[in-house]
Amino acid sequence: MEETLTYISKNQNRYINELKQFLSIPSISNDPKNQADMRNCANFLRDQLNDIGFQQTKIFPTNGHPIVFGEWLGAPGKPTLLFYGHYDVQPVEPLELWKSKPFEPTIHQGEIYARGSVDDKGQVWMNLKAIEAYLKTQGSLPINIKVLIEGEEEVGSSNLENFIYSHKEMLKSDAALISDTPMLKHGLPSIGYALRGLAYFQLDVTGSHDDLHSGSFGGAVINPNFALAQIILSLKDAKGRILIPGFYDDVVPLTTQEKIEMSKLPFNEEKFCKDFGVPTLFGEQGYKTLERIWARPTLEVNGMSGGFIGEGSKTVIPACAMAKISMRLVPNQDPKHVAKLFENYLQKITPPSVKLKMKYLNGGKPWVTPIHHPTIQAAFRAFKKGYGTTPVFIREGGSIPVVAILAEILDIPTALMGIGLPDSNTHAPNEKLNLANFKHGTISIAHFFDEFSTSIPN
Amino acid sequence: MEETLTYISKNQNRYINELKQFLSIPSISNDPKNQADMRNCANFLRDQLNDIGFQQTKIFPTNGHPIVFGEWLGAPGKPTLLFYGHYDVQPVEPLELWKSKPFEPTIHQGEIYARGSVDDKGQVWMNLKAIEAYLKTQGSLPINIKVLIEGEEEVGSSNLENFIYSHKEMLKSDAALISDTPMLKHGLPSIGYALRGLAYFQLDVTGSHDDLHSGSFGGAVINPNFALAQIILSLKDAKGRILIPGFYDDVVPLTTQEKIEMSKLPFNEEKFCKDFGVPTLFGEQGYKTLERIWARPTLEVNGMSGGFIGEGSKTVIPACAMAKISMRLVPNQDPKHVAKLFENYLQKITPPSVKLKMKYLNGGKPWVTPIHHPTIQAAFRAFKKGYGTTPVFIREGGSIPVVAILAEILDIPTALMGIGLPDSNTHAPNEKLNLANFKHGTISIAHFFDEFSTSIPN
Repeated sequence: MEETLTYISKNQNRYINELKQFLSIPSISNDPKNQADMRNCANFLRDQLNDIGFQQTKIFPTNGHPIVFGEWLGAPGKPTLLFYGHYDVQPVEPLELWKSKPFEPTIHQGEIYARGSVDDKGQVWMNLKAIEAYLKTQGSLPINIKVLIEGEEEVGSSNLENFIYSHKEMLKSDAALISDTPMLKHGLPSIGYALRGLAYFQLDVTGSHDDLHSGSFGGAVINPNFALAQIILSLKDAKGRILIPGFYDDVVPLTTQEKIEMSKLPFNEEKFCKDFGVPTLFGEQGYKTLERIWARPTLEVNGMSGGFIGEGSKTVIPACAMAKISMRLVPNQDPKHVAKLFENYLQKITPPSVKLKMKYLNGGKPWVTPIHHPTIQAAFRAFKKGYGTTPVFIREGGSIPVVAILAEILDIPTALMGIGLPDSNTHAPNEKLNLANFKHGTISIAHFFDEFSTSIPN
Repeated sequence: MEETLTYISKNQNRYINELKQFLSIPSISNDPKNQADMRNCANFLRDQLNDIGFQQTKIFPTNGHPIVFGEWLGAPGKPTLLFYGHYDVQPVEPLELWKSKPFEPTIHQGEIYARGSVDDKGQVWMNLKAIEAYLKTQGSLPINIKVLIEGEEEVGSSNLENFIYSHKEMLKSDAALISDTPMLKHGLPSIGYALRGLAYFQLDVTGSHDDLHSGSFGGAVINPNFALAQIILSLKDAKGRILIPGFYDDVVPLTTQEKIEMSKLPFNEEKFCKDFGVPTLFGEQGYKTLERIWARPTLEVNGMSGGFIGEGSKTVIPACAMAKISMRLVPNQDPKHVAKLFENYLQKITPPSVKLKMKYLNGGKPWVTPIHHPTIQAAFRAFKKGYGTTPVFIREGGSIPVVAILAEILDIPTALMGIGLPDSNTHAPNEKLNLANFKHGTISIAHFFDEFSTSIPN
C-alpha cells in the first residue's frame, strides 16, 4: 500500500500532462459538430485503460455517443466495484468570458483551467490513476473493478439506462463509485448521500407566422415575448414557491436530525455570495440556503430568447419566443410525473392568443441512500486517510441520473466521492481543477479500494 | 404630361432591372460589417441622380452612413419640393425563413422579393423614375426638386437632425414628399397625416459574475431571466395598458370626427389576422384595432435573451439577461421625456437582487398634420388620377423621425404618399414589392409633381 501511495505522489507531473491531453479533446456532447471528437475521446480512454493494464476493454456504440468499458477481475473472492464516470463536457459559451481557451488546458497558480477539468474528466483521471498505481506497483488490485465511462451525462444520459439494462450481467457488481460532485469546501472531504433529480423542458411560444413590424402592428397583436414572460412568472411566486399544482405532493421533507446536521456544516452565506458575485441570496421562504439547494425542488429558466437580440435596434414583434426550463427534483419526485403536471398547468396558464409547444428534453430521478451503509462507511474511512481530516456527509443539488439507474437496475449502492470544489466553475467559463486536490483525491481513491476490499457490501 | 406617363409605362422593364441592382446591395445600416456596402449604395444612388439629369449631386459624409443629395432647380417661380427617402435596410434575420436570398432580388408571381424592395428602396425608385420620365420626355420638371436620401433611417436617423439643421439653406423648400408607408389595402391609395414616434431602449439585468450550475445553485440565488420577466410584466397590465407613471399624460386623444372617419375605412379584422397568421387580436381595452395601431402609444419587447439558447439542454443559471424594449409614441409625447419616466419607473420595479442597466438606443417624435393643407390636397388629386379611385386619409403606426424634424427645422409640411401594401413583409423575411403597384405609384408621383406645381404651399 505504501509503495502505491508513493507511486501516486511521484507521478503527479506525468498524470497532469496526460490529463491535459484528455482535456484537449472538445468532447461537447450536445453539439452535433463534435461527433468526431466524441469518438476520439472514447478511443483515447480505451487506449488508456489498455495501457493501465485492464484485462478487457471495449467501446460500445449507442444511439448517441459511445460508452467505454473496461474490467480487471483478478481478485477472486473479493468484492467487485463499478466505477462510473463521463467523458463528455458542457458547452463552452459564452466563449468571451474564458481567460484561456477551454480546450487548451492552462496551468495558473496551482489550477488547471479547461472545460471538463473537474466535471468530469479530471475526476475520472484520479480514479484511473489510482488503479494504475496499484497495477504498476503490486501487479494487482485488492478488489475486482469494472469501469463504465459514458459520453452523454451532460445531455441527460438518454442511452445509459437501456445500456445498463441490456448489460446487467457484464456490469454486475457489489457497489458503485462515482467522483462527480464538489466538496463542501477546500480540504473538507464530503460524501454525498442524496442527489436531486432533473426534468428539463423547452417551451416554444408562437404568435404570428412571421416577425411583424412593431410600428404597423404594435398595440394590436400579442407579443410572444410578453406571453412567455407571463408564463414564466406563473411558474413561481414571489416567495420562490413553484405554482404547478401537485408539484410538492411527493416531496419527502427533511428530518429534524438532518436539519440539525446540515446547520452544523461550515457554510458562510456572505462568502458564498462574494465567491459567485451574487448581490444577495434569494429562495423559497422558510428554508436555509443548504436546504434550498440540497433538499428542496426548484425551477429555473436556463435560457430564453425571442425576437431581435443582435447589436443595435430592430423594431419587430417576434413571431415566436423560446425558453429552456428545468426543475431540480428531490426524493420521491418522478420526472415523468412532474412533466405531466407541468403540461397540464401550462395548458391553463398559456394566454389564448399564442400557441405553446412543450418538449421534454431529458430528466433523471432523485436519489438518497443511508449513510450507515458499509460502502459509504468505506468511503468515509478512505477520505479520512486521504485528507487527514474527518469527512462530512452532504447532499448534492445537481443531478447524476446514473445513480438512480444503478440503484434501480443493478440494485447496488453508490459511494459519491466527489473531488470538485465550490469554486471549480463547473458548467461555467473558466472551469478549473486544483492540483493539490487532484493528488489528495487520487490517494483517497487508492485508500477506498483498500477499505472496500474488507467491507462487506450489501 | 401624356408623353411622360407613356414613357413610364414603356420603361417598366428597365426600371425593374435597375431596381434589382439597387436591391442587390446589402445596405444594412445596423451592422458594422456592411459599412462598405453602405458607401457603395450611396455611390450607386449619386450616379443614378447624375444619369437622370440632376443639376447638382453630392455625397455628404456623416458620423454614421453618408447622405446623398441632388437638386434640379430649373423651374423659377415654381414651388420647390424636398423628396426624402432612405437607402438603408433592416437586418435580414432569421435568414432561414426567406424563400429566396434577401439580396438576390427574385420575381415571383408579380412581386419582387428582396430586403428593401418596399422599405424604402423600391419607393425611392418610383420617385426617381418619375423625375427621369419628365426630364427625358420634356427636358424639365414642372417644379423645382431637391432629393435627400439618407442611410440611417432603420437605426433611428441619428445624424439626420444635425445635418438638416446645418444645411437649412441648401434644403429650403415649400413642402416635402415621402414614400415610405403602406396603403390601407391593395388598390386603395392612402395619404398619411399622422405618424407615431419611437423610443427604443436596451435593458441589461445582471445577477452573478458568471453563469452558475443550476444544480449546485438552483433555489438559492435570483435568476436574471426571472427578474427580466418580472420587469417586463410590470410594464403593461393584462388589459394592454402601459404602467409607467405619467406615460399617458401628454397623449392627445382622437377627436370624435377622427374616430368616425376611421371606423368607415375598410378594415377586416378577420382578414388581418389571417394575413399575418395571428390567432387573435390583443390590445389596449376600450380601443378598436386601427385606433390602437395609429393613435395609441404602445410598448413592445422587440427582443430578449438570457442563458443557454442553443440546441439541446444546458443546466445554467445565467449571469445576465437582456431585453430590447421600444415604445411607439403619439402626439404630443416626447421620447426624451418618456425615457426619463421609464428610467424612474425601472428603478422602482427592478428586484433588488439584480443590477439593471438601461440604455436609450434611439427615438423620434410623433407627428400630425391637417389634411386640408394644399400639399396634402395635391397628393390627394395625384393619387386619385394615378389609381383612378378616391384616396383615403390614414394615420401610420410606424415612425419616420424625419417628418417631425422637417416640420421643426425647415417648417414645411410633408405629404406621405406611401406605396407599400399591408402584406409587403417590411422588416420581416420575404419582403416584397408588387410590380403593378410600382407602376401606379410611379405614375401617381408624376401627377403629384404636376398638381404640386399649381398648389400654393404655405
